Amino acid sequence: MPSFNKSSSPPPIGVFDSGIGGLTVVAELRRALPLERILYLGDTARVPYGGKSAETVTRYSREISDLLLSEGAKMIVVACNTASALAVPTLAPAYPVPMIGVLEPGAAAAVKATRSGRIGVIGTRATIGSEAYSKAINSLNPDLSVTAIACPLLVPLIEEGLFDDEVTKTVLQRYLDPMLSQGIDTLVLGCTHYPLLKKAIRTICGDGIQLVDSAENCAIAVNSLLAAGSGNARGPRLDILLTDSSEGFLRIAEKSLDLKIDSLSVRSVGN
Amino acid sequence: MPSFNKSSSPPPIGVFDSGIGGLTVVAELRRALPLERILYLGDTARVPYGGKSAETVTRYSREISDLLLSEGAKMIVVACNTASALAVPTLAPAYPVPMIGVLEPGAAAAVKATRSGRIGVIGTRATIGSEAYSKAINSLNPDLSVTAIACPLLVPLIEEGLFDDEVTKTVLQRYLDPMLSQGIDTLVLGCTHYPLLKKAIRTICGDGIQLVDSAENCAIAVNSLLAAGSGNARGPRLDILLTDSSEGFLRIAEKSLDLKIDSLSVRSVGN
Repeated sequence: MPSFNKSSSPPPIGVFDSGIGGLTVVAELRRALPLERILYLGDTARVPYGGKSAETVTRYSREISDLLLSEGAKMIVVACNTASALAVPTLAPAYPVPMIGVLEPGAAAAVKATRSGRIGVIGTRATIGSEAYSKAINSLNPDLSVTAIACPLLVPLIEEGLFDDEVTKTVLQRYLDPMLSQGIDTLVLGCTHYPLLKKAIRTICGDGIQLVDSAENCAIAVNSLLAAGSGNARGPRLDILLTDSSEGFLRIAEKSLDLKIDSLSVRSVGN
Repeated sequence: MPSFNKSSSPPPIGVFDSGIGGLTVVAELRRALPLERILYLGDTARVPYGGKSAETVTRYSREISDLLLSEGAKMIVVACNTASALAVPTLAPAYPVPMIGVLEPGAAAAVKATRSGRIGVIGTRATIGSEAYSKAINSLNPDLSVTAIACPLLVPLIEEGLFDDEVTKTVLQRYLDPMLSQGIDTLVLGCTHYPLLKKAIRTICGDGIQLVDSAENCAIAVNSLLAAGSGNARGPRLDILLTDSSEGFLRIAEKSLDLKIDSLSVRSVGN
């Protein structure tokens, strides 16, 4: 695999997440914008973010955004719901390029999807604790009812690749039962890891509930933000920087998301 | 709760872990050395260590040991099996105070305990991948057979407080079955989180298997290393520094381990 070389490449879309979850956003970006160059940073030295404080997640997000900017990123996609909820509102106004998180597009899609007016949201402890989804949904329509539940065990199960496993199903059922009994008709997958569990979640929820995938809706928002014809004439490229070496990362990227990676390097960030 | 004040206190035993697991070592140290002052650092901003590389875990351990030393620590107890396996061999010779990990005492206790010569070890992916337990056990007795299994889901389950839960039991059974069928008579709990699951592990293993608790054996080693009468004349004290605020931390310390905490502060380390 050739190594990452900044000078020879056009300005990329910078994308970051604490670990592998943001790759679901990369997969959707690739589908929506097949010619773009993407520079992805996975903060695997400090993964996960979902149980950490707003102050710490904001510091990590600033350090990574600075790095992506220094690599020439023309926009920054925060492919992590926890960082989108806790850091984007503070950081976005301070950067000279557009910074777009996964939260607002997901909230807007949920508002559009619901018929019954009852929306469920699942996410990390930090995302749910911030109430960012409830606020974003209710700022668009104050009449909607939002039930949000923190699902802290899902990220570890996904990082282990246990997508279709009895333990994952039991844990999911436990998290989802209370909101299903409240009659939601729309469920926001408020963590970029969760699309990897879509099949298991669909089995538990049944066909009557619409699943809102924040990765997919973020890619749609990025697409409409970029000027037409902004693609890389030399063809698509995916360069990956990780803050710590990580075996599981590549396995999931290649097997579950069918992503072609052009370069992969380990890079220190912040410390 | 009064805040932590370095100048007014005698030299502490410095203890660190990535998160809450090292508190099981603190609880054993408190039992063995009831008068000592303990200064504990939990690296909750970068927790967990168990899936990270030797290079990253060594860098984190060095930053924390430097901080404990600057706070006057008279010895450093590495209350984390991952850091004991990956960082202590490199770092210990470089420090002016004794640095003691949990791995060597646990390995020695397992060698002493086995009758059948078949020892099982459970730990994080990084600890098991390093083969540090197998090497330590076989350096004491090359005839012993060691079966080591990585149990990456146990730390997240413990951090969620699911000590007595069906999901935890199912996951444990899955990890332990292969080594039970190999006829081990001794099982090393090779992660300082695991003593919190002792009851569930005991139920699955039955009474025929000796559980070796690395926390307990580390406290015995620290006790024999410290000169008699080294206790703090002003009575015991436990000061805690965390690198990120953490609710779950206090809950587990107080409820599950019955530890009295004299001060708790958040402190940045390394970055």
